[in-house]
Amino acid sequence: MATYLITGASRGIGLELTKQLLDLPASQVSKIFAVARTTDTGLLQELVQKHSDRIVPISASVQDNASVQKAVEAVKANLQGKGLDVLVNNAGVMDHSPGKIGSMETDQLTWTLDINVVGVQRVTAAFLPLLEQGTQKKIVNISSGFGSFAYVAYTAAIPADAYNISKAALNMLTVRYAHQYADAGFTVVALSPGWIKTDMGSQDADLSVEVGVAEVKRVILESGKEQNGKFLNINVPKTDEMKWSYDGQDIPW
Amino acid sequence: MATYLITGASRGIGLELTKQLLDLPASQVSKIFAVARTTDTGLLQELVQKHSDRIVPISASVQDNASVQKAVEAVKANLQGKGLDVLVNNAGVMDHSPGKIGSMETDQLTWTLDINVVGVQRVTAAFLPLLEQGTQKKIVNISSGFGSFAYVAYTAAIPADAYNISKAALNMLTVRYAHQYADAGFTVVALSPGWIKTDMGSQDADLSVEVGVAEVKRVILESGKEQNGKFLNINVPKTDEMKWSYDGQDIPW
Repeated sequence: MATYLITGASRGIGLELTKQLLDLPASQVSKIFAVARTTDTGLLQELVQKHSDRIVPISASVQDNASVQKAVEAVKANLQGKGLDVLVNNAGVMDHSPGKIGSMETDQLTWTLDINVVGVQRVTAAFLPLLEQGTQKKIVNISSGFGSFAYVAYTAAIPADAYNISKAALNMLTVRYAHQYADAGFTVVALSPGWIKTDMGSQDADLSVEVGVAEVKRVILESGKEQNGKFLNINVPKTDEMKWSYDGQDIPW
Repeated sequence: MATYLITGASRGIGLELTKQLLDLPASQVSKIFAVARTTDTGLLQELVQKHSDRIVPISASVQDNASVQKAVEAVKANLQGKGLDVLVNNAGVMDHSPGKIGSMETDQLTWTLDINVVGVQRVTAAFLPLLEQGTQKKIVNISSGFGSFAYVAYTAAIPADAYNISKAALNMLTVRYAHQYADAGFTVVALSPGWIKTDMGSQDADLSVEVGVAEVKRVILESGKEQNGKFLNINVPKTDEMKWSYDGQDIPW
């Protein structure tokens, strides 16, 4: 009987996660607030048609405080005094800047930080009162192994400087929430979803969206207080075609 | 005969570092470009009076691309075809937000990231061509142990959420520069200056500005290619009055 809010729900990981969670029985997932800048996209609307009683599309931009606040009001009205159980901060952007970091435009970095870091703060802070009323108090920040300092030797040359910097910042935001709200019963985790075939990940990625997101869903469902403050990983057997490995072990920061 | 550019040079660590470097012989430190939003402050002007042949005050804001670009032109004209040897990205801000991270204003986070992370990118990217012409190719980013994931258990409750998040991001920016420009002969490091009695550090801090900055100076002077990509620490014997310890060992990210 858990209620979820997922940002970036109109495509990619967010859309597939919404779909797969709706495939679970209503006794397990009672309602999903599917937040996206544009909610009238075909694939999200298909889900709305199919599960009209359990999905609430909400148009909001994580870059805009006022629109996030309106989303809070809409969710609050819909929950009718109940709390929100799980928040999945999934909305994010990735730059594919050619060249080295010295040629990264500052506007690119500012924009990426605004969505991937400040956007998570906008949403999390705004929904905190509803999460405090929830039964699970779970916040899942979709991060990336690219944000790990332990993996820099493998990731430093990949031209996504703003993305990697933003994910390191998101990870620090995550662990600070985790520590500061542990006593209040919260579980706050960073989760690396793996390299998934989405618009962001490209079709060169390691994992189909179905396989990758099935693991994302599993990790979200299975994570509890003992995972608070951790950097969680999916678990998919390695094949020769895969560039990275996903062994299910916590990722070092 | 090295030339330095130091941001945030009108007060605190930046001012004292400028002063202590100017105390070295001109054969070692031939010129310092002292960058600050406001350069007509008393203490910086005292240094300008005393060392008029070796210090060039430059008014620029790390938040403004155009003003940074003007600073590049001024430095370039002054160097007359020579390169810049050492860049010290010292300008930074720290929030002291009361309450938990859930009450952190997004404007606070945006502002802090803009100065402490994007500001470093603005300055570093803009001066990269001059640094490439320099003899040392050294970039020192003044970071903080607060940006380390290894220390989160000690730092998570300290009310400076935006600062800590920004320093984790700055550290990732640092290691990406370090990796991407190693082959070009660069040394790029993060340096934790310790808790120093400045306006930012407050008078409760562990170290006098003279003692702390003497160590900062030493680490800057002694660091070379073997330190590239590391998170450097100062080395000060521990006393009972000190809250933190500074053992000179590289800091884990």
